[in-house]
Amino acid sequence: MKRMTFWFEYASTYTYLTVSRIDALAQAQGVVVDWRPFLLGAMLKDRGMVEGPFTGQPSKLRYMWRDLERRAAHHGLPYRKPSVYPPNTLLTARIGTLAAMQGWCEDFTREVFRLHWTEDVAIGSDDNLRRALTSLGRDAEEVMRAAQTEGNKQLLRAATDAAEALGIFGSPTFTIGEELFWGDDRLEDAIAFAVAADAARSAARSQAAA
Amino acid sequence: MKRMTFWFEYASTYTYLTVSRIDALAQAQGVVVDWRPFLLGAMLKDRGMVEGPFTGQPSKLRYMWRDLERRAAHHGLPYRKPSVYPPNTLLTARIGTLAAMQGWCEDFTREVFRLHWTEDVAIGSDDNLRRALTSLGRDAEEVMRAAQTEGNKQLLRAATDAAEALGIFGSPTFTIGEELFWGDDRLEDAIAFAVAADAARSAARSQAAA
Repeated sequence: MKRMTFWFEYASTYTYLTVSRIDALAQAQGVVVDWRPFLLGAMLKDRGMVEGPFTGQPSKLRYMWRDLERRAAHHGLPYRKPSVYPPNTLLTARIGTLAAMQGWCEDFTREVFRLHWTEDVAIGSDDNLRRALTSLGRDAEEVMRAAQTEGNKQLLRAATDAAEALGIFGSPTFTIGEELFWGDDRLEDAIAFAVAADAARSAARSQAAA
Repeated sequence: MKRMTFWFEYASTYTYLTVSRIDALAQAQGVVVDWRPFLLGAMLKDRGMVEGPFTGQPSKLRYMWRDLERRAAHHGLPYRKPSVYPPNTLLTARIGTLAAMQGWCEDFTREVFRLHWTEDVAIGSDDNLRRALTSLGRDAEEVMRAAQTEGNKQLLRAATDAAEALGIFGSPTFTIGEELFWGDDRLEDAIAFAVAADAARSAARSQAAA
C-alpha cells in the first residue's frame, strides 16, 4: 500500500497550502495519507530551540506573508491574510488528535484552515472550533470535553514525541518510513517517494516469492 | 530588458543548486542575471539574529544534508558531501565582489562551488581559491591583493548593507525591483516574475507612446 504520514501544526502558515492541496495530489497517485497533528512550538521550546521559524527575524516574517500570498495565487487557492498570528492552537490540536483517532481529522482540519484563511475566523478561537465542528455535524460541547480528557492529551503528547524522535522540526512534514520531507514545496516529492517505496517493496516481495 | 539580481553567500549549501542551475534557466527566458555576493552570516549577526539557519537546530541541519542530496539528484547535479561546514567565506566573497565589478563573477563562483561540491576542495581554502583563479587564467596573487584593498572591502560591505535594506535574510535570494524570492525552490518563480515585470513595463511604455 502506498502510504505516508502528514505531520502538521495548526499555527503553521505554509501548512494552509498543504491542507488545501494534499488530498487531490495524493489521490491522483493512489497514496493514503495519515493526518497527524502535533505541537511544534512546544516541541521546539522543550528542546531549547527558537520557538518558531520567524522568531526574532522580522524580514523573514515579512517575506513569509508575501511568499505565502504568491504561492496561494500560484496554486489558485483563496487567500486572506489572517488578523491573528500566531494563533493559539492547543485545543485545536487536541481536537484534531481525537478526530484522527476517529477518522474525521482531515475534514475537521480542512474546515479549520478554511475559516482561518478565507474568512479570518482565527484558528484556536471558540468561533472557529464551533463552526468547524457544527459543519461536520458534531456536538461541539461533547467533542471539546472528549478532547480534554487525560487520555487524549497524552495522545497528542505522544504524537509530538514521535515527531521529535523522527527528527521533525517544522510543519508541514511528510514521512515515509524514516524518510522526511519538510515544507509544502516538498509535497510532490514526498508523494513520489511514497509511490516509489511501494513499488520497491512490491518488487522485493515478488523476488522473495519467486 | 529582463533582469534580476542573484544575491548569494558562498557558505550557503542550497546556493550550490542555484549556482549550477541559474544560467540555463535564465538564458532560456532571456533574463540577464546580476550576480551579487554578500556576507549573510555577518549581516544576521549584526542584526542580533541567529547566525545561520541551522544554528542550534541539529535535526534541521541533518535534514538539510539529506534534502540537498535528494535535490541535487533531482536536478541531475553531481554531489559529494563536503568535509568542511560551514566554510569561512570572507576572502572568497571579497574576490567574488571584485569579480562582479570586472565581469567574471559568474565563472569564478561556478568553479569555486564545483570544487567544493564535487571534489571536496573547501570553499575559502587557499587551494580552492588558487585553483579557481588559475582555471580562469587569472594571476592568483594579484587578484588576492586587489580583493583586499580598502575600496573592494567597502564594496562588499555596501552589497551586504544593500541586501539588508532589501529585507534579504538568506541565500540564495533573487530580487526584481523590490520583489524578493528566497531559496533555490523559488528560482523558476523569480525568473517568471522578471519576464512578467518586463512585459508589464513594455506594455506601459506602448500605452504612454500611443
